[in-house]
Amino acid sequence: MRQKTSNVPISSKAPTSSNAMWGGRFASGPDAIMEEINASIDFDRRLYDEDIAGSKAHAAMLADQGIISAEDASQIIAGLEDIRAEIADGCFTFSREREDIHMNVEARLAELIGPAAGRLHTARSRNDQVAVDFRLHVKAAFGALAEALEAFIDALLDKAEAHADTVMPGFTHLQVAQPVTFGHHCLAYVEMAARDLSRCRDAITRLDECPLGAAALAGTGFAIDRHQTAAALGFREPTRNSLDSVSDRDFALEFLSVAAICGTHLSRLAEEIVIWSTPQFGFVRLSDAFSTGSSIMPQKKNPDAAELVRAKPGRINGALISLLTVMKGLPLSYSKDMQEDKEQVFDAIDSLALALAAATGMVRDMAIDEQAMRRAAGHGFSTATDLADWLVRELGLPFREAHHVTGRAVALAEERGVGLEDLPLDLLQTLEARITDAVYSVLGVDASVNSRTSFGGTAPANVRAQIAYWRDRLGGKGE
Amino acid sequence: MRQKTSNVPISSKAPTSSNAMWGGRFASGPDAIMEEINASIDFDRRLYDEDIAGSKAHAAMLADQGIISAEDASQIIAGLEDIRAEIADGCFTFSREREDIHMNVEARLAELIGPAAGRLHTARSRNDQVAVDFRLHVKAAFGALAEALEAFIDALLDKAEAHADTVMPGFTHLQVAQPVTFGHHCLAYVEMAARDLSRCRDAITRLDECPLGAAALAGTGFAIDRHQTAAALGFREPTRNSLDSVSDRDFALEFLSVAAICGTHLSRLAEEIVIWSTPQFGFVRLSDAFSTGSSIMPQKKNPDAAELVRAKPGRINGALISLLTVMKGLPLSYSKDMQEDKEQVFDAIDSLALALAAATGMVRDMAIDEQAMRRAAGHGFSTATDLADWLVRELGLPFREAHHVTGRAVALAEERGVGLEDLPLDLLQTLEARITDAVYSVLGVDASVNSRTSFGGTAPANVRAQIAYWRDRLGGKGE
Amino acid sequence: MRQKTSNVPISSKAPTSSNAMWGGRFASGPDAIMEEINASIDFDRRLYDEDIAGSKAHAAMLADQGIISAEDASQIIAGLEDIRAEIADGCFTFSREREDIHMNVEARLAELIGPAAGRLHTARSRNDQVAVDFRLHVKAAFGALAEALEAFIDALLDKAEAHADTVMPGFTHLQVAQPVTFGHHCLAYVEMAARDLSRCRDAITRLDECPLGAAALAGTGFAIDRHQTAAALGFREPTRNSLDSVSDRDFALEFLSVAAICGTHLSRLAEEIVIWSTPQFGFVRLSDAFSTGSSIMPQKKNPDAAELVRAKPGRINGALISLLTVMKGLPLSYSKDMQEDKEQVFDAIDSLALALAAATGMVRDMAIDEQAMRRAAGHGFSTATDLADWLVRELGLPFREAHHVTGRAVALAEERGVGLEDLPLDLLQTLEARITDAVYSVLGVDASVNSRTSFGGTAPANVRAQIAYWRDRLGGKGE
Amino acid sequence: MRQKTSNVPISSKAPTSSNAMWGGRFASGPDAIMEEINASIDFDRRLYDEDIAGSKAHAAMLADQGIISAEDASQIIAGLEDIRAEIADGCFTFSREREDIHMNVEARLAELIGPAAGRLHTARSRNDQVAVDFRLHVKAAFGALAEALEAFIDALLDKAEAHADTVMPGFTHLQVAQPVTFGHHCLAYVEMAARDLSRCRDAITRLDECPLGAAALAGTGFAIDRHQTAAALGFREPTRNSLDSVSDRDFALEFLSVAAICGTHLSRLAEEIVIWSTPQFGFVRLSDAFSTGSSIMPQKKNPDAAELVRAKPGRINGALISLLTVMKGLPLSYSKDMQEDKEQVFDAIDSLALALAAATGMVRDMAIDEQAMRRAAGHGFSTATDLADWLVRELGLPFREAHHVTGRAVALAEERGVGLEDLPLDLLQTLEARITDAVYSVLGVDASVNSRTSFGGTAPANVRAQIAYWRDRLGGKGE
Repeated sequence: MRQKTSNVPISSKAPTSSNAMWGGRFASGPDAIMEEINASIDFDRRLYDEDIAGSKAHAAMLADQGIISAEDASQIIAGLEDIRAEIADGCFTFSREREDIHMNVEARLAELIGPAAGRLHTARSRNDQVAVDFRLHVKAAFGALAEALEAFIDALLDKAEAHADTVMPGFTHLQVAQPVTFGHHCLAYVEMAARDLSRCRDAITRLDECPLGAAALAGTGFAIDRHQTAAALGFREPTRNSLDSVSDRDFALEFLSVAAICGTHLSRLAEEIVIWSTPQFGFVRLSDAFSTGSSIMPQKKNPDAAELVRAKPGRINGALISLLTVMKGLPLSYSKDMQEDKEQVFDAIDSLALALAAATGMVRDMAIDEQAMRRAAGHGFSTATDLADWLVRELGLPFREAHHVTGRAVALAEERGVGLEDLPLDLLQTLEARITDAVYSVLGVDASVNSRTSFGGTAPANVRAQIAYWRDRLGGKGE
Repeated sequence: MRQKTSNVPISSKAPTSSNAMWGGRFASGPDAIMEEINASIDFDRRLYDEDIAGSKAHAAMLADQGIISAEDASQIIAGLEDIRAEIADGCFTFSREREDIHMNVEARLAELIGPAAGRLHTARSRNDQVAVDFRLHVKAAFGALAEALEAFIDALLDKAEAHADTVMPGFTHLQVAQPVTFGHHCLAYVEMAARDLSRCRDAITRLDECPLGAAALAGTGFAIDRHQTAAALGFREPTRNSLDSVSDRDFALEFLSVAAICGTHLSRLAEEIVIWSTPQFGFVRLSDAFSTGSSIMPQKKNPDAAELVRAKPGRINGALISLLTVMKGLPLSYSKDMQEDKEQVFDAIDSLALALAAATGMVRDMAIDEQAMRRAAGHGFSTATDLADWLVRELGLPFREAHHVTGRAVALAEERGVGLEDLPLDLLQTLEARITDAVYSVLGVDASVNSRTSFGGTAPANVRAQIAYWRDRLGGKGE
Repeated sequence: MRQKTSNVPISSKAPTSSNAMWGGRFASGPDAIMEEINASIDFDRRLYDEDIAGSKAHAAMLADQGIISAEDASQIIAGLEDIRAEIADGCFTFSREREDIHMNVEARLAELIGPAAGRLHTARSRNDQVAVDFRLHVKAAFGALAEALEAFIDALLDKAEAHADTVMPGFTHLQVAQPVTFGHHCLAYVEMAARDLSRCRDAITRLDECPLGAAALAGTGFAIDRHQTAAALGFREPTRNSLDSVSDRDFALEFLSVAAICGTHLSRLAEEIVIWSTPQFGFVRLSDAFSTGSSIMPQKKNPDAAELVRAKPGRINGALISLLTVMKGLPLSYSKDMQEDKEQVFDAIDSLALALAAATGMVRDMAIDEQAMRRAAGHGFSTATDLADWLVRELGLPFREAHHVTGRAVALAEERGVGLEDLPLDLLQTLEARITDAVYSVLGVDASVNSRTSFGGTAPANVRAQIAYWRDRLGGKGE
Repeated sequence: MRQKTSNVPISSKAPTSSNAMWGGRFASGPDAIMEEINASIDFDRRLYDEDIAGSKAHAAMLADQGIISAEDASQIIAGLEDIRAEIADGCFTFSREREDIHMNVEARLAELIGPAAGRLHTARSRNDQVAVDFRLHVKAAFGALAEALEAFIDALLDKAEAHADTVMPGFTHLQVAQPVTFGHHCLAYVEMAARDLSRCRDAITRLDECPLGAAALAGTGFAIDRHQTAAALGFREPTRNSLDSVSDRDFALEFLSVAAICGTHLSRLAEEIVIWSTPQFGFVRLSDAFSTGSSIMPQKKNPDAAELVRAKPGRINGALISLLTVMKGLPLSYSKDMQEDKEQVFDAIDSLALALAAATGMVRDMAIDEQAMRRAAGHGFSTATDLADWLVRELGLPFREAHHVTGRAVALAEERGVGLEDLPLDLLQTLEARITDAVYSVLGVDASVNSRTSFGGTAPANVRAQIAYWRDRLGGKGE
């Protein structure tokens, strides 16, 4: 939702319509064009909190190093706190003439505290200032994403536990292949989400360096203490190269690629929910909370939430490509092109936040039709491979012969319109004399899933063990 | 500039900060999530003008066909005109509860004119309504893009005319290869822009079909006249298939791909301007209108406008990939995924409008340093191929031998630290006895460009002829 | 390196394995790296036919203009024809040392005819040579795509005709919304394919200019006749600007964007086929020709062809983004970056050719289960909107009240477990006394589709009229 | 179809030309289409080594678990080793009828050892087999990338050391902003490459799970030991969920996103090299090994290698988008769409290997023109900010006043056509009386860089300390 950040009114003009921009607005000359090019305040005010935090840390350090006076620092810090409150309360007037969040805050600070405000910019530049603001924001986004992923995993584990024994079809090519349990299916998404979580944590560790103090691009001759500001802002350490500090947007690219992979996972679940909630499949019924109906077709449940989750990778992948394209072939250090970095990331953050919240909600809320799942699981002689494996395992038949016998058994069942488990033993014995009663233990769908006890297999006992594993691992936050 | 469309305040809350969305907002439960999923009013109110135009045409047709009364139609139309004025004047209150522009307008209409408002939705659905709104908007955007391209071409032609004789280096691999004229270089961009223009016109012809009346997806049993509404809205004809009418977003994809190619052209020019305006090249000097300076380094001219033009393809390509990704594999007819179509297109429209306006302005404003260009053009024996060609053409030397002689001439010039045109005739004759005075006619950079008279070649006479060709062709709008 | 379509063996080495490239190969020094960078023969030999055609036209023109002798031209042309035959017969030895197709052909020509071969390169450069080769190839690809689209449309029209009356569910959100006919559904894809066709034809017109004679970048001083070579190669006219001629890759970008949109259309059909051929839907049964089975699960039909068609946009969109990314911000005229243009286009050509052939084959071959479609169409009171529309149309009820009555009727039907058309008249009259027998004419699914006669609506008569329209339009090739 | 890396001849047909595929080839009917769809051997034979390793580990485990006999296992393993040798020696005949590498190997094994070959497929499926093959390949690619990055860093550190004191301009907007050292500039790329390296190592840890034994999708009833096969193949542990094991391609997506970011870094360096090696900049001179010349313009050095490195992100970003697009919305577990995964990754591996080798070679080989760099660094009063900072730091001037004084000093210098460091002290004192001789210690470019001693700043001492830091950190491989 891109407009999210624009809740504070800039003007009360009518919405741009009929492509007014092309003609009218820019026809007035270069000024309107350059305002449009330079003013980033419409979106970068989202960084106000980080900007003020960075300035406070910088001012305190300057005072500690004797670069500005303690009194100036107190005034600056108090003024910044007032500004923070003004913005949070919605009573700050943002100005496009002051271009960006840095200059909006700085100009207001001058209004509030007078000339001391001017000392804040000592040993600092907008280049390192925006780098630290944006990095703080992305670090927080990774943290929030990690929390949201834990909530999603939690919902999946609860659902998996409730359905550790619920048999459903395992699909390949969207055709029934072998029975699995719904709990096992949920755990597949736990694996995906856990990898997403692991990527978040690695990324946080990697970006945990503070660029503040790189100044314009070359560092500074003032005796600043970058370790102090880094620590004050919660970073592990300062960055090691001033040119890279103001040129680097890896942290943003990494957020976008982590988000793109995570969004892809969610879209797979969303597609399954859309298909499962058709009347033809009927595996799940979405709650009213996550679907919309029709006033005259009360049984119609449009899976709007699932569809939007499915669509979001479009947006996130687009943002990823945008920023990769902008950064490609850009000489060091700062170029104006890099102003295009923020909106893409903000949009991806909001898109993924929405998609994860919706996916978590749907997993928690959706009602499973166990009968429909079980019925579908038995369809199409889905235990044929179980029969073949049994023939190999128990009777020692070579694989090829076991396949041949199984094919004939399926043909017999199809002829009679029954399932494999409904074929009488004597009939099976006409195909292979050594078949015994024991074979039925793998022909039903429950028997089939119970037999798949190899590590990672779908047997309910495995499913329960995996749930315990994940609860333990995540409880200890030991990812 | 994504926030452009959100000039009308929805609330006066503080900007979203610290990723508030992840945690707080959605934690309150499904309602906040579903509002976020369903409410498109934040961006689709940009379509208000088209929405009202569509509704007026529909109401008039319903009355003409006797489906609603003439009186109802008048009331509806008058009400819609009032709403249009309210929105244009900035005194309409948009509501997220009413989800989208269609329902915001419809609900307001009911407030204004009472029950008659309900008849407007006869033989119509939101599915065909949004299709016609969006298509009208994109058609207008193509039209505006075409006009902006004509202005850009105009600026290029003027610059080309002023510099038909201005010699500059022709580069390959960013290394000086052969002299060309700056006018010729400008005309290369005219060719690109003319292809962009041609793509716009083809696209307008292709999308010029009106989906209104396709209803939900299957057409309707009411005796509507789709040819009438199509004509009233300026479309050539109605669409021919109701399912396609509500499922099709080709017009949006085509806008995005036309925009992506156009944006790529502009980015090439922008990169050249960035390089040309370095002190090292010094070919052009940007006006203050399109660059920013430094308070303490007055000679520094940051080419911000050029850099942003160079960056915009990131955004447009991203939008193109977004919508292609959303539409991929989507079953017919309408799915909620398609709600993701508009913001990408709006953003691309605004990005391209800005980039074209900036590029046009820069072309008009930039000052050319003819001396610097000429000096660079002569660098590196750039007329060596002219010499070789002359030896083939005038003396009938085989190509390979001509190359050999030329290589030796270059070596002699390099040794002496002079240009090819400064080598004395007798020295040249030691390399090949038949060389005459006439050779000097191709060794200087002016001589070189003047000699390239093949169709499409860089000779000033050619450049002037091409300018006349384009003025004539565009004057007649005969693209 | 994409050494695709490399059917002619370059070496008989083992396949690259274990990422041998990283270590071993490049460790030997710059030579291996530069060979890899410069040698394009592995993929550009695909252009051999175009390269030879271009050279023949050039040689003939040089002779006609008196630039080379008639005898030299004959020798050159005869030699080129021999080379063409050698390559077509698979007995030409391509060499990586000779880098590209141009130099492979030229060197072989020198072997065959001696020094006269050297004259072929007069007034030409590899820059315009590759531009004309590639443009010819893309033009042919557009032509072939157009033909393949006509075959696809033909298959759709035949299927539509056979199923003009076959009722199926019209879906929104993959939920049954209103009945349509399968013929109508097929025609939606005809509309999409016809737009693709129209884009091909526009693109061919736009690219129909010959760059040959632009030489390195500046044109030439030789008295060449570019109109002659343009005509000989089947182009409408020569290009108008030499710099643009060697810098332009719009035709390739336009092919990729047309292909991306076309591939998106095919992926939508493919997704529908995958869903329709699940046992749960059971609308279609794929022939063995386009699916794969399982030796032991004979009823399992994996829709491999449909899945691959669904996947192909990944590849085509990727190719589009690749080339857009390469061209972004590239200064004029030729840069080595542009060597990355061909493989992407070749891959997209082959991907789309395969996807279209598979889609056409599947449409022709797939068996429709009319009963399953009809059954699904009636599901979920899909004619509820028909009832509401009837109440408005015939009884003059306001929309809102009509909706209310319909909702109650649906509730009654649901209670009784019957369809709307099974509710007795007296029961309906308890809801609205004026309802008559005539209402049943819209409650069944056949009645519903028959009633949708608005232009573009799903009524079988409309479907037949549209089939006739398209047959006529395409028969006359009058797109 | 990307039949890359197809060094082993499949046929000796002529190259596909004139888009033969569209028409001729597929016209013959579905067989050619399905062969094209199903046959992946043209590209997946690149996995032969991994496939054979996987099969050997599986066979050994089956024997250890008593599922097959020890004798069968020995035969199988010996046969597989023979096949490996055949392929490595280039004397294996790959067959498209046998579709993929798995079936090519399996069929050959049956030829070599007879019926025992059939037992190898016990408790295994092509779904888990391809998953393990591909994962092994990607793991090795990450390892090789890490090594190549270390070599790149090494080259950068050596260059940085040689130029720790070499002054060059620090650019913003490609305009000279402040002096830096070339060593410092090199270290910026070390930071980028070290992040790339860190991403590789995290990714290896994350993917280090073995999917072998997941079987078709549900696990198996055979008593297999997945921990044994995981260990035998060098994985940390087996995967935990069978559905995810065959559905997951995160490791491939993560490789592509790591590669995209790394390729972006390289493209930035490449762009700088292209610009730096123009005669206008003249900062570096590329060796002949990494540039190409012109036979008649001996001084022309086309930076082909740098241009191709700059272009490669096009290809890698395209591959990333391709696979993201394919995986989006794909229901579990295996679908044929996933066959599109390998070629994109193989192409990205090869592209990045080439780009990194070329970048490393260029860094090592390029000659630095220290004089040109220093001259450019002094251009444009690049030490103006040093003067302003000195006024603040030493004289306690408020920032704004310091800026004012500096602006006037620059104006004086510009007027006189000299540098700031050439202004006489008495003249400076007319601007601010307290200025002393000491000011000259920051006005020259050397003084300027020496003064920037803040952590991460450009001072030569800092540069040397950072080189030591990286040598130590990488020497210990402690990333």
